[in-house]
Amino acid sequence: MKNSNPLKFKRAVIVGVGLIGSSIARALRERGVVDRIVGVDSDPEILARARKIDVIDDGFSDLKAGVENVDLIILSTPVGALTEICTTLAECAPDGVLIVDVGSVKGVVAEAAKSLPDRIHFVPCHPVAGTEQSGPEAGFATLFENRWCILTPLERSDDAYLDAVKQASVLWTAIGAEVEIMDAAHHDLALAVTSHIPHLIAFTLVGAADDIESVAPGEVVKYSAGGFRDFTRIAASDPVMWRDVFLNNREAVLEVLGRFSEELAVMQRAIRWGDADVLFEAFSRGRSLRRAIVDAGQETDVPNFGRDQSGDTGEED
Amino acid sequence: MKNSNPLKFKRAVIVGVGLIGSSIARALRERGVVDRIVGVDSDPEILARARKIDVIDDGFSDLKAGVENVDLIILSTPVGALTEICTTLAECAPDGVLIVDVGSVKGVVAEAAKSLPDRIHFVPCHPVAGTEQSGPEAGFATLFENRWCILTPLERSDDAYLDAVKQASVLWTAIGAEVEIMDAAHHDLALAVTSHIPHLIAFTLVGAADDIESVAPGEVVKYSAGGFRDFTRIAASDPVMWRDVFLNNREAVLEVLGRFSEELAVMQRAIRWGDADVLFEAFSRGRSLRRAIVDAGQETDVPNFGRDQSGDTGEED
Repeated sequence: MKNSNPLKFKRAVIVGVGLIGSSIARALRERGVVDRIVGVDSDPEILARARKIDVIDDGFSDLKAGVENVDLIILSTPVGALTEICTTLAECAPDGVLIVDVGSVKGVVAEAAKSLPDRIHFVPCHPVAGTEQSGPEAGFATLFENRWCILTPLERSDDAYLDAVKQASVLWTAIGAEVEIMDAAHHDLALAVTSHIPHLIAFTLVGAADDIESVAPGEVVKYSAGGFRDFTRIAASDPVMWRDVFLNNREAVLEVLGRFSEELAVMQRAIRWGDADVLFEAFSRGRSLRRAIVDAGQETDVPNFGRDQSGDTGEED
Repeated sequence: MKNSNPLKFKRAVIVGVGLIGSSIARALRERGVVDRIVGVDSDPEILARARKIDVIDDGFSDLKAGVENVDLIILSTPVGALTEICTTLAECAPDGVLIVDVGSVKGVVAEAAKSLPDRIHFVPCHPVAGTEQSGPEAGFATLFENRWCILTPLERSDDAYLDAVKQASVLWTAIGAEVEIMDAAHHDLALAVTSHIPHLIAFTLVGAADDIESVAPGEVVKYSAGGFRDFTRIAASDPVMWRDVFLNNREAVLEVLGRFSEELAVMQRAIRWGDADVLFEAFSRGRSLRRAIVDAGQETDVPNFGRDQSGDTGEED
């Protein structure tokens, strides 16, 4: 964590004041990186809620009005909205402004950014962090601490842009993240593996369970501690955000889904034929990978995610 | 919780002193249900460890020696071992003894129990509880609190057996569980949905991620906070236990896996064709089911399973 970083913005605008946007706003404010933060959101109720809890100083439903006089633009909408936003920013964004986004897909963001003139500097970013909750109230300043933020810079090599990439990097570091730079296509494949396919599978399993008529819905709930409940956390994520991810990362998602389906077919066959060795070998791989994730500081080591220890289960609500 | 329950055993034997067996031992001792607890395990090292931490009073590697003079037998081995254990118990178990198991599959347990004479009373049980850890040290007395334990009684209607079913029910209630009675076939289908298929998918996803050469293993670890890490918890479960589950619940698992695969094919097609409405509708189902599970006391309501709040991540190890 850097408390004495030289990065300073006078006025930032957060476009899309949900979980991620409000977490960035809180973190920037807490670290003293920005003097004033305004919000833009198509939903006036969201703006009102964000102002009420002091996540933003002022709110605008109109993007043009919101970006006036800003030196930092943070786009934290679902990725499906970025093309239209870029078209608007091409006209009205102040000269020299730094623009970052938080989209979970990056190839499509590079496409959207093609409409932008070189006088403004869009650095596509993806902080790999979040929770299953939504809305400005769900955000918190420490969300990005010890999480990776991936930057996929555009194909520009002018000094102003390279400087903007550096600024974006310092910005994320200032709010606790580790920064990695890669190209958009590699990002989209890597995140298909570590994020998009896990979400798709979780959504699908929850849907399939819902459909099994012979097992009453009450039983899925009752016996969810057998493993099912683990899937429901990410299956409770924002449906609009995830719809946009899958609409915009089709190729990589279908590729990884193909590999998963192959592996699942191998498992299915092993179960059908009672092949104990194949099952045992496959089931033995999980522990070492989980250990590596825990050792990398990306996961808790407490059994059951600490549910038992905290005693903080639903019955207390 | 019942502190003043009339159930009392003089000498219990726990066959298989792992996570579940040692948790039962601790819970029984803490609630004063049993005077003396002995352990049977094929691994002498496990027995030594369990004695060292006072989970058992005495240990036997031989089942016949272990069941001498007991009035309660708890079978907490992987289900694959139960047929052989039942054959042995048919000869040497004391008259009138209550036998319970903890297997995650129940049809095959009913089959195994067919070798038992009516003078001993086996009540197949499945406490839907556990963690991803293994071994006697991983157990804890509160593991079964507010969790469901499913009883699938054998097809016997004599008074001695009906009384044994009652005793088994009181036993689980005494250590904090809620008891439900159903037939073995229904159990095996319900748990295929809520436990077996989630585990199979988690194991498979972890295996598939391992295989994607174009994404370095380091990246799977780094960006696991995007969703993948949620799957690694149950994928870190005991491989022997889970091999036995899939070898012994083939029919129900293949049935539910078929439904899951159909649903996944629908999602795959929607992604390929860019069908936004199908994706949005499917992704919108997760929140209500998770809410129901939280409300039922089977899950924590804290975002990210509370990983962020506790600060208890791997980097502290």
